Amino acid sequence: MPIVVQKYGGSSVADAESIKRVARRIIDTRKEGNDVVVAVSAMGDTTDELLDLAREVSPMPPPRELDMLMTAGERISMALLAMAIADQGHSVRSFTGSQAGVITDAQHGRAKIIDVTPGRITEALGKGHIVIVAGFQGVSKETKEITTLGRGGSDTTAVALAAALRASVCEIYTDVDGVFTADPRIVPAARKLDRITAEEMLELAASGSKVLHLRSVEYARRFDIPIHVRSSFTSKEGTLVTDQPAPEGEAVEAPIIAGVATDRSEAKVTVVGVPDRSGMAAQIFAAIADAEINLDMIVQNVSATETGLTDISFTVPISEGPAAMQALSKIQDEVGFASLLYDDQIGTLSLVGAGMKSNPGVSATFFKALAAADINVEMISTSEIRISVVMRDDRLDEAVRAVHTAFGLDSDQEAVVYAGTGR
Amino acid sequence: MPIVVQKYGGSSVADAESIKRVARRIIDTRKEGNDVVVAVSAMGDTTDELLDLAREVSPMPPPRELDMLMTAGERISMALLAMAIADQGHSVRSFTGSQAGVITDAQHGRAKIIDVTPGRITEALGKGHIVIVAGFQGVSKETKEITTLGRGGSDTTAVALAAALRASVCEIYTDVDGVFTADPRIVPAARKLDRITAEEMLELAASGSKVLHLRSVEYARRFDIPIHVRSSFTSKEGTLVTDQPAPEGEAVEAPIIAGVATDRSEAKVTVVGVPDRSGMAAQIFAAIADAEINLDMIVQNVSATETGLTDISFTVPISEGPAAMQALSKIQDEVGFASLLYDDQIGTLSLVGAGMKSNPGVSATFFKALAAADINVEMISTSEIRISVVMRDDRLDEAVRAVHTAFGLDSDQEAVVYAGTGR
Repeated sequence: MPIVVQKYGGSSVADAESIKRVARRIIDTRKEGNDVVVAVSAMGDTTDELLDLAREVSPMPPPRELDMLMTAGERISMALLAMAIADQGHSVRSFTGSQAGVITDAQHGRAKIIDVTPGRITEALGKGHIVIVAGFQGVSKETKEITTLGRGGSDTTAVALAAALRASVCEIYTDVDGVFTADPRIVPAARKLDRITAEEMLELAASGSKVLHLRSVEYARRFDIPIHVRSSFTSKEGTLVTDQPAPEGEAVEAPIIAGVATDRSEAKVTVVGVPDRSGMAAQIFAAIADAEINLDMIVQNVSATETGLTDISFTVPISEGPAAMQALSKIQDEVGFASLLYDDQIGTLSLVGAGMKSNPGVSATFFKALAAADINVEMISTSEIRISVVMRDDRLDEAVRAVHTAFGLDSDQEAVVYAGTGR
Repeated sequence: MPIVVQKYGGSSVADAESIKRVARRIIDTRKEGNDVVVAVSAMGDTTDELLDLAREVSPMPPPRELDMLMTAGERISMALLAMAIADQGHSVRSFTGSQAGVITDAQHGRAKIIDVTPGRITEALGKGHIVIVAGFQGVSKETKEITTLGRGGSDTTAVALAAALRASVCEIYTDVDGVFTADPRIVPAARKLDRITAEEMLELAASGSKVLHLRSVEYARRFDIPIHVRSSFTSKEGTLVTDQPAPEGEAVEAPIIAGVATDRSEAKVTVVGVPDRSGMAAQIFAAIADAEINLDMIVQNVSATETGLTDISFTVPISEGPAAMQALSKIQDEVGFASLLYDDQIGTLSLVGAGMKSNPGVSATFFKALAAADINVEMISTSEIRISVVMRDDRLDEAVRAVHTAFGLDSDQEAVVYAGTGR
């Protein structure tokens, strides 16, 4: 029997009625002739409520105890979901992350899955049970401690289970219909994608798209697990994230552009007046790395040769901005740069599409559209299938709409850009 | 270092402030030079809230999933308590029942502890940590499923840990000052006992005293663990429950009477007109046992020889009354009794005291006091150290006060009945 892994987020199981609705959907999947394994998040606001309780007790709770606390959330939702399924006459077993064999490293609060040993799940499926698994949590290999995967970790749990169980598909249920060419709240004309490659989805997730958690897409890509992103409120097909070729009869050529992502969560740090000698940049980035801060875009301006000085700019998550400034201040004398600038009023726009590789006209169209909308581009970074630009954040929405239209992505337009049109 | 096991109930950890207060008390015990292991219940109303959620989802949730759900409650309280202790600068580890090695049978919702393997606790104590353990829960030996011990099970967890760790004492913190000679809400003159034997405490708990859970007293008695029942709101000494002799200098003779317990939770079932032949009673009690109903008191009236018929009365918990009536109705034709009577307007009064064994005057004083208060006794049952009587429930309070006074238990009286006074 094919195995389908499903994941339901907190908003899909926010109350008893929602839980019953999700239970019916799970049972429907079972009735269609599948073994069903479900990863579930904590109900609605449970995670935030537990965090509030923790803060009332201690401003800096030990990470081990915080993980112990947070994992109570999925324990509640998974047990209730199992009860709702049993109430509709189907046999079911719920398992914690530890029971499900989700083995992680020992980094509390942001553990990485290092193995999945789903013996109890396989046994339960063999006995005809539907299986519910607590998302977001696991147990550390060395210390046997309860761990959490960090926010969005339930997506990763689902994909990891799908890989370990050799599932035919991993369905991620959410409150939107699938992956869109842009955020529909910013671009009302955004279209739902039927298919997208894992590589493209990875770039979109890294560029600010919130639909799927970056780590889950990486995991799915590595194990070649198709992800079906769909709404838990309708039965419509959503978006299939896969590098596998489309079946015969579907679109013969993939579109050049998959979508436009936006990100307002980063700040720009500029190190001004860095002596233009080898090793200076290395010292700066070593300081950032030692502070465990994630860098995103990096730009080094052309050196003004007469001064022998250069400026280095990079983006970091706003939440890590203060730590970055502190780390750099400490090495100011040593490196000998002039000053630091901090700017959190920036927005990043990223154009993502596998078809870019073979279509040199994409960059020209992109920058022409931005210029026509009078957008001042402050930083540029590219990958093989992505162009990202930094601008003032109050210009971001306008820029996205301009780019979306320029590439013919608007849903009320006939002209969809396909590879080979030479645009 | 001596090990002290403490247990805090739900009302002691109802909110962040209470949790911090309990944390300070635990740290004080640690500072006095003890290794401290704490069993904690779920916060305040958490257990009831989780039960409500379960009922919203399913009227008859599977016991396995209900246990999975309920155990989230202690996971939350134990993690928060550990955080509060860490916040005050002490190293601490929390463990679930399963992690703490609380091994049970597989009866979900009312599992029995069959072994405690506290390897992780001992290791944590060895590293200087304070240890917090989730009360009320364990893991089944055969099936490795999460189980709960039933209501009041946290007391049993604490005592079982104390036994396994060879603790010097098991302190049960509650919202009263200790064990009283009677329920102070009924008898304002009730006195707190400094000491009581485990045998007496067992009879009091079985007779309706709510201070300690019956199973925890049985467990403590079997392993000879002293229980110190005390208030989490004061630092006063409470009541020591132990069969060990009092140290030199304390009361040389134990009082005859430990206390008077009351119980309104039972109903009386009377099987009327049972043929007075051997085997009839056996059939009746077999039917009750098959329905897994707990009988308490049983009385068979003297047979009316001219009719060859007899009446059999017994008490059952009110919650099991309907099931008892149903089980008996099914065998009416077979046994040939005339009818069934059901009465839930009864109250039970029990006088408990180890000194009764050697003091024949106790019964006389007891029934004289009831007669003087004009109480009509409907059923009588006795053990070596207990006399119980059933009466109308609206007379119970008056009866308790009369008996309490008759045995000189009132706290404003000088005359305390000691063994050897011949009363």
